[in-house]
Amino acid sequence: MAEQGSYVTPGTEYTRDQRYIATRITRDGRDGYAVEPGRYRLVVSRACPWASRAVVVRRLLGLEQVLSMGIAGPTHDARSWTFDLDPGGVDPVLGIERLQDAYFTRIPGYDKGITVPAIVDTRDGAVVTNDFAQMTLDLETEWTEHVREGAPDLYPEPLRAEIDEVASLVFRDVNNGVYRAGFAGSQESYERAYRRLFDRLDWLEERLSGQRYLVGDTITEADVRLFTTLVRFDPVYHGHFKCNRNKLDEMPALWAYARDLFQTPGFGDTVDFVHIKQHYYCVHRDINPTGIVPLGPDLSGWLTPHGRESLGGRPFGDGTPPGPVAPGEEVPEGHRAG
Amino acid sequence: MAEQGSYVTPGTEYTRDQRYIATRITRDGRDGYAVEPGRYRLVVSRACPWASRAVVVRRLLGLEQVLSMGIAGPTHDARSWTFDLDPGGVDPVLGIERLQDAYFTRIPGYDKGITVPAIVDTRDGAVVTNDFAQMTLDLETEWTEHVREGAPDLYPEPLRAEIDEVASLVFRDVNNGVYRAGFAGSQESYERAYRRLFDRLDWLEERLSGQRYLVGDTITEADVRLFTTLVRFDPVYHGHFKCNRNKLDEMPALWAYARDLFQTPGFGDTVDFVHIKQHYYCVHRDINPTGIVPLGPDLSGWLTPHGRESLGGRPFGDGTPPGPVAPGEEVPEGHRAG
Repeated sequence: MAEQGSYVTPGTEYTRDQRYIATRITRDGRDGYAVEPGRYRLVVSRACPWASRAVVVRRLLGLEQVLSMGIAGPTHDARSWTFDLDPGGVDPVLGIERLQDAYFTRIPGYDKGITVPAIVDTRDGAVVTNDFAQMTLDLETEWTEHVREGAPDLYPEPLRAEIDEVASLVFRDVNNGVYRAGFAGSQESYERAYRRLFDRLDWLEERLSGQRYLVGDTITEADVRLFTTLVRFDPVYHGHFKCNRNKLDEMPALWAYARDLFQTPGFGDTVDFVHIKQHYYCVHRDINPTGIVPLGPDLSGWLTPHGRESLGGRPFGDGTPPGPVAPGEEVPEGHRAG
Repeated sequence: MAEQGSYVTPGTEYTRDQRYIATRITRDGRDGYAVEPGRYRLVVSRACPWASRAVVVRRLLGLEQVLSMGIAGPTHDARSWTFDLDPGGVDPVLGIERLQDAYFTRIPGYDKGITVPAIVDTRDGAVVTNDFAQMTLDLETEWTEHVREGAPDLYPEPLRAEIDEVASLVFRDVNNGVYRAGFAGSQESYERAYRRLFDRLDWLEERLSGQRYLVGDTITEADVRLFTTLVRFDPVYHGHFKCNRNKLDEMPALWAYARDLFQTPGFGDTVDFVHIKQHYYCVHRDINPTGIVPLGPDLSGWLTPHGRESLGGRPFGDGTPPGPVAPGEEVPEGHRAG
């Protein structure tokens, strides 16, 4: 997601700029970009919850061989995410140092947020889309000829209405709700966001007390979207964004649900807690001027038994879990939980 | 305590200015100030952990009728605590708006911190002392002719060496340790403070697993000093000062110990959580530029059963608990736990 420059506007409510490049990559190529193995590159940051959705979905579906991935560093300056993790600070496929170059190739003088996730066409190095919400849906529905054997159906036709409805509430109150709390420009707008967030978490706590996954009895897009916020809750949203009625680990069903997903191949093995903390605490200098990154919280709880199997559920439905993380895409050891 | 102006000096370790006006009020009046009922006024803020020690001790000893108390508001500007809670913004006994006036009466041009707690001589309106550490010890040992019937001995002769030793470790690593973490000017000094803090909390957790109070089997000065930091831990130090390995309520013995004291007359009934949060989040703008005050954490846990009675201990030794809070000194209802 964007997150450049300053984040808080005194006296106002935080409003996310939701103007994205909405071009779609589809089976029929009707926007000029057809699904094609090896043609596109997904650019992400492991710090970013919105980009992390695409990282999880790509891995659950086994798209690693057909859609390559570039990983930007966790921090960035006012204008762009950068490839400072790569040798020479250059993305090896796109040959650029700064993600903004791919945006400018697509739209000269592009003046909206240089955000991740972005999918870049390797033919001309131009961003095709950064519309994070549509992006995962398209991976799930337009790329079906190229997914691995045993890939789950993350957006099953009969459940789409319910997935969309839940995801919409979760987006407003939770995924984006934490930002509305953290970047609030007034006490009043902070308090409104906080109350909506915890009301929604209470609603989710109740819903997840009786069922293993958010919609249906298998993992869906709705779970991916909630997971990437929950995994950041105690490390950053609780303190940095003042979402502090309680920690996630004080909500028994949500905490067990989050651990269940974390311990499922494709979720926790994509999470880099060092990148997450560095990003939020170093980049948002207007709410953390010192740039000091907390050492806590203790993350060992993520690997403890969750007991959610007793609720039934078939994580991958008729499919299978993904295999090991692709070589070169492993999260470094010191960056994981435990 | 001081806390004026800016708190973080980039690149440095936080160092508390420990130069106080060290004049003592004693039985024999050797510094020119003899113990005398009705002569002095204790000025505090309920926000401040150092001042809160004196508030607790005064109440445990029943000194309300002989040593009056002025309560400054939770926030202040760069130079002084103010009496903005009083009608007309003026302390009704001292007749001043700003505590600094009492400092200047004592020492014209006083250039060190205008801190609470301060004891002011009502005869001339001049500060006698702001040496918070000596202040409670003197209340306990020099004012003994004026304490209530049944007042406990908070600094028993045979235990003084042990109390001093424990209090010294707790001061360095915990009471002041949280400030060293929160106001650290570099990642390195933050991390050092964090590690010392949690190492010491682990040590306290173990010590308090087997005994009800810190030293001996009754409440002492050592418990008062630890309590005023613990009660602020989850509301401010955990998030605002980045002391976030875990919340206090995740350390079973320390959390039960803190609740035990909180529920003991003289402790919890002096705690104003609204003042505490407003002070830290509004005054330290260099680490919280927006001044937004978190709504959390949920404080209802403070009133839950602690089970510490099973460890034995005699809270007030041969004495008795203090009676109800003196009229006019009650913490407002919405400012309490629960």
